[in-house]
Amino acid sequence: MTKGIITISREFGSGGRLIGEEVAKKLGIACYDKNIIEKIAEQSGLSPEYIAEKAELSPRKGLFAYAFSGRNTAGKSVEDIVYEAQREVILKIAEKESCVIIGRNADFILKDREDVLNVFIHGNLPEKTERICRLYHVDAAAAENMMADIDKRRMTNYNFYTEQKWGKAENYTLTLNSSQLGYELCEKIILACI
Amino acid sequence: MTKGIITISREFGSGGRLIGEEVAKKLGIACYDKNIIEKIAEQSGLSPEYIAEKAELSPRKGLFAYAFSGRNTAGKSVEDIVYEAQREVILKIAEKESCVIIGRNADFILKDREDVLNVFIHGNLPEKTERICRLYHVDAAAAENMMADIDKRRMTNYNFYTEQKWGKAENYTLTLNSSQLGYELCEKIILACI
Repeated sequence: MTKGIITISREFGSGGRLIGEEVAKKLGIACYDKNIIEKIAEQSGLSPEYIAEKAELSPRKGLFAYAFSGRNTAGKSVEDIVYEAQREVILKIAEKESCVIIGRNADFILKDREDVLNVFIHGNLPEKTERICRLYHVDAAAAENMMADIDKRRMTNYNFYTEQKWGKAENYTLTLNSSQLGYELCEKIILACI
Repeated sequence: MTKGIITISREFGSGGRLIGEEVAKKLGIACYDKNIIEKIAEQSGLSPEYIAEKAELSPRKGLFAYAFSGRNTAGKSVEDIVYEAQREVILKIAEKESCVIIGRNADFILKDREDVLNVFIHGNLPEKTERICRLYHVDAAAAENMMADIDKRRMTNYNFYTEQKWGKAENYTLTLNSSQLGYELCEKIILACI
């Protein structure tokens, strides 16, 4: 399989972003993560700070409340406007260059292309907790709250906009448990698929 | 990661069994698939023909009906007796030797061991349909019915006995789409994890 684009979906704390960055570095291609925000801001006319908060993460409420609140007369919420801009940006990037895209439902947005490798990285609670404590200087309880909160908001956003279930094997070309396999082996496996 | 046991869960038609057999051959270890049935029959006192039908596949009814029907005064159904025997056999095999085990909820049954690589193999509808038509000499409609029926019964059995969701990335060390990756690359990836 020859793939030009790699999408990395990931649980918070699983090291998915890091693995994606390393893969991009080894392939000599761009990795789009937070650096995509400026592009989405430009496309939508909204501020980068606002995009950073809204893109990919749904508000802290359930899917049902999310689906029906804050919509304008055209039935569009600000989240919809952000999502539409994000979609346009990702489609344009994919058209232009080989790259790694972290998160942002890129697997679904690019589903009509043949040259996309969709990866989901997840991990075990103890390893993810340890990593978050170390990176964010928080205790284990705070780390577990962060994980629950961020993964829930990612999942809500994904399930709402894609009508697929976040973390289900069938959405991805491959899924990897980074706690069991280790980051280096995850990188090697992804590179072997290119 | 050094693993002694590989469990392969798979969608019907995805080639998971074939991939598992090839991996076992390359590692020079046993592959347990239908050949486990004799052992389960011996353990349970039930006939091999009966085990072949009952082990791994739930009856053609929903999970709720399944949970409450056909139970004896101890609250055990024949499926429970088969499952318990299957569990004992899988635990004994894992204790004794390195091997590949196809299906039969072995990922869950062996979850307390550290030396298990859990793999889920799935695929795309067109490729799975083509394979089933070729192997079973049926037309596409019949192949799709077989897939829907067998995967539903595997899923019901898995979800009932494991209280996990069949096909969710988090249950497995890795999941692979064999239609996108090809069988050979799936084998290579599994071997790279050993």
